[in-house]
Amino acid sequence: MLRAVKEKPDFQYLRLANEIEGKIIGGEYRAGDKLPSLRKLHKQISQSISTVYQAYIELENRGIVESRLKSGFYVKPLLHVKLSSPKSVTPSAIPKKVSICTIANSIIEAMSDPGILQLGGAAPSSDLLPSKQLSRIIKSASQEEMKHIMLDYEIPAGNMELRREIAKKTFGLFEKITTNEIITTNGCMDAVSLCLKSVAKPGDTIAVESPTFHGFLQLIEGFDMYALEIQTDIVKGIDTKKLMKAIDQHDVKACILNTTFNNPTGFSMSDRRKRELVTSLNKKNIPIIEDDIYGDLYFGEKRPSTLKSFDKKGLVLYCSSFSKALAPGLRVGWTIPGKFKETVMRNKMIASLASSRLNQVIIARFLKSGSYDRHLRKIRNQLKNQVSNTSLAIARHFPENTKITSPAGGLLLWCQLDPAIDAMELYYEAKKRNISILPGAICSGTKKNHNCIRISCGYPWSKDLENGIITLGRLISDLVDKKNGAN
Amino acid sequence: MLRAVKEKPDFQYLRLANEIEGKIIGGEYRAGDKLPSLRKLHKQISQSISTVYQAYIELENRGIVESRLKSGFYVKPLLHVKLSSPKSVTPSAIPKKVSICTIANSIIEAMSDPGILQLGGAAPSSDLLPSKQLSRIIKSASQEEMKHIMLDYEIPAGNMELRREIAKKTFGLFEKITTNEIITTNGCMDAVSLCLKSVAKPGDTIAVESPTFHGFLQLIEGFDMYALEIQTDIVKGIDTKKLMKAIDQHDVKACILNTTFNNPTGFSMSDRRKRELVTSLNKKNIPIIEDDIYGDLYFGEKRPSTLKSFDKKGLVLYCSSFSKALAPGLRVGWTIPGKFKETVMRNKMIASLASSRLNQVIIARFLKSGSYDRHLRKIRNQLKNQVSNTSLAIARHFPENTKITSPAGGLLLWCQLDPAIDAMELYYEAKKRNISILPGAICSGTKKNHNCIRISCGYPWSKDLENGIITLGRLISDLVDKKNGAN
Repeated sequence: MLRAVKEKPDFQYLRLANEIEGKIIGGEYRAGDKLPSLRKLHKQISQSISTVYQAYIELENRGIVESRLKSGFYVKPLLHVKLSSPKSVTPSAIPKKVSICTIANSIIEAMSDPGILQLGGAAPSSDLLPSKQLSRIIKSASQEEMKHIMLDYEIPAGNMELRREIAKKTFGLFEKITTNEIITTNGCMDAVSLCLKSVAKPGDTIAVESPTFHGFLQLIEGFDMYALEIQTDIVKGIDTKKLMKAIDQHDVKACILNTTFNNPTGFSMSDRRKRELVTSLNKKNIPIIEDDIYGDLYFGEKRPSTLKSFDKKGLVLYCSSFSKALAPGLRVGWTIPGKFKETVMRNKMIASLASSRLNQVIIARFLKSGSYDRHLRKIRNQLKNQVSNTSLAIARHFPENTKITSPAGGLLLWCQLDPAIDAMELYYEAKKRNISILPGAICSGTKKNHNCIRISCGYPWSKDLENGIITLGRLISDLVDKKNGAN
Repeated sequence: MLRAVKEKPDFQYLRLANEIEGKIIGGEYRAGDKLPSLRKLHKQISQSISTVYQAYIELENRGIVESRLKSGFYVKPLLHVKLSSPKSVTPSAIPKKVSICTIANSIIEAMSDPGILQLGGAAPSSDLLPSKQLSRIIKSASQEEMKHIMLDYEIPAGNMELRREIAKKTFGLFEKITTNEIITTNGCMDAVSLCLKSVAKPGDTIAVESPTFHGFLQLIEGFDMYALEIQTDIVKGIDTKKLMKAIDQHDVKACILNTTFNNPTGFSMSDRRKRELVTSLNKKNIPIIEDDIYGDLYFGEKRPSTLKSFDKKGLVLYCSSFSKALAPGLRVGWTIPGKFKETVMRNKMIASLASSRLNQVIIARFLKSGSYDRHLRKIRNQLKNQVSNTSLAIARHFPENTKITSPAGGLLLWCQLDPAIDAMELYYEAKKRNISILPGAICSGTKKNHNCIRISCGYPWSKDLENGIITLGRLISDLVDKKNGAN
């Protein structure tokens, strides 16, 4: 219950605003929550409607709440809490064989363990996904349809119905994409893997962001290639100048980039920077494998553009999937590999002949039903609130010198902890307590993210998650104390 | 209607036997058909029951019919028609980069085109598969179950329920296989691909049978490895001595072998030869990737043994799938990689994280229902008859100097045509007439199978198939005439 203290009218609204801000920072009101109506609060705290209104406007000015037409005032998601943004670290620009961690496996395994608190794997909870509609698609199929959907080999390029829907869905994202330019895959990693195999050979050097998605480092190592990590600003994205310089120094064969709602750090490059990046790489004829898996999950008004939209030479191999927004378990991804289409096609056929038709048809029919846009609007809002609530909880419960990112989409937060922290130690301590997080060290071969962790916000905010953040906060404090005591 | 000519009693039964044989060769009675009962034929042709009986026994002795207890006489499948077995060709034992054909893609694409006669792709028609039972599994799952089956990420090693069922299913095939030793994959090719990546590096030499499944050659080329083709007898299988000699001469890193109902030639190695092969390779510590995808489809009494059952060192990486006997479109395969388990596991995770849970659960529950054995009995019998009918039709309609194999399982026939024939030319001519076949040339980098084709018998025998064989027969005769005319 909000209380207001009688004071000089001029200060009353400020006092009230401060009090409400305290309750938001304290977690009593959460991101997305509606504040009491003017009339209700006016009655409750015996202040004039005008004072309450002034307080709300003050909070709006502070960027903490937002007014929604005919609906009232809401706690703003993505509150810029007191924690500052983490600084980027400079990776050494020497290609090196990536050392792969078995931690990645353990994090994925944790994802299917309901006893573990899911702050590790980058996936949405199935509670956010349209399971009823998806299963209705199968359940309403006729016996004869099911026979062909389940039993016939699919064509290697992928289900026609699905490719047609993807072409429609991506309309406007790029220039003139036709069904024939699309190849479906077993998820996005499969797409990136097939593309990488199609543009580079063992021994080649591949440029990536730093930090980068650990899966890319594993992939590059798996192909006996070398990863060249390029300095990447945690807010603005990869440094194109440094990338071009590295390309001049090393014989870079291709780049794997995730420039929208980046995994792990969450940044999204501006259109200007994306265009500059692609233009520079086009000039040098360097293929870009673009991972756009989080692109649909923007919190703002407009979908960020793709690197491919700036590509003039067919050198961008666009990769995405339905794993983050619709159905992780179905493993349906796709690629638009530009001029490398025939090679990617052949590599797909060699590796696994064709993907399952059943899974592709389920997604295709869901897209066809027209429900995808509605679903995306809903899940975007949910993720926005989850990211915001997690940020707020971290602000409340992690030590004050913690720095976190403030992503404008996706579901990942990147935290820079006290420099004394070894996030790997934190990872193991958290694991003992059934909390899954991702230690930043696996996102780089350079070991420069030793005090960073990636927190996934895929699950609806809950008391359990809050408790998990509290536990992590305590573990961090304890580890800092231990290190400082030891020094 | 059978007619019998009055003659000396001693010859009557022979005359009758010859007449019946003629009708079988002529296709009037097909493999699996029941011959008229003794009583019925006795009345029909006014011969004594004893004569009819003697004729049937004569046919049984000739290996053309078989008597079944309390049921009567049946046309025997796998009739050894007049065509002789093809001779094996000697590949040159020098490792060479395999040149890959786009024909493979075209054959797979043809598989999902109902307008094309399916003698190309090695897959059973969906009419032979238990589609009702499989779709009932999905349709009867609850909403809550479907949510988790469709949406949650599966663990990288594969669905636990499925791996448990595979462990049960393979009980007796090997020694002591536990759930934890099994990794599920996106079909058998994916399994072989993951295993190959786990035992060899680019530049390495891999020994294969010759001819071999073209997919293996593509895979080896795709990994920048070298295929070493080893002489393989079309009836007895790979020549172990020649293999061991080649291993001594070249630095062979691994073998990919398909020793049971081999694709493309259909042979099945004897237990003795399999044991000798594995023992020799064990001695040299050479890993064997065993493709056992056709093993369940035996026409005889007993499932052939696996190479893995003779493996003392964990060097056999066993691969199989449910694509040939149960559900091609679901792309569910598995591997038991022995001592390479951790590496295969990691490679799977890197390449595609995990396979679809939905597809794995459908197969797991089908296995659990106990229907798989019954289904296998049924489909084995159907395939046996289809192979037999196709053989007979080839005997009737292909030129007399055609040689075909007589497989004891699976669904593939290998035909050696007149040496003047270029099977590639035949392939294109057949394609123009909407008939899909597989030209032998793509099964070897040595081009020594130029006059061979692989015929798939996955579809229930029909007038259309017979007409397709007639058309192929005419095309072959025309091509031979053309060549001879040209010379």
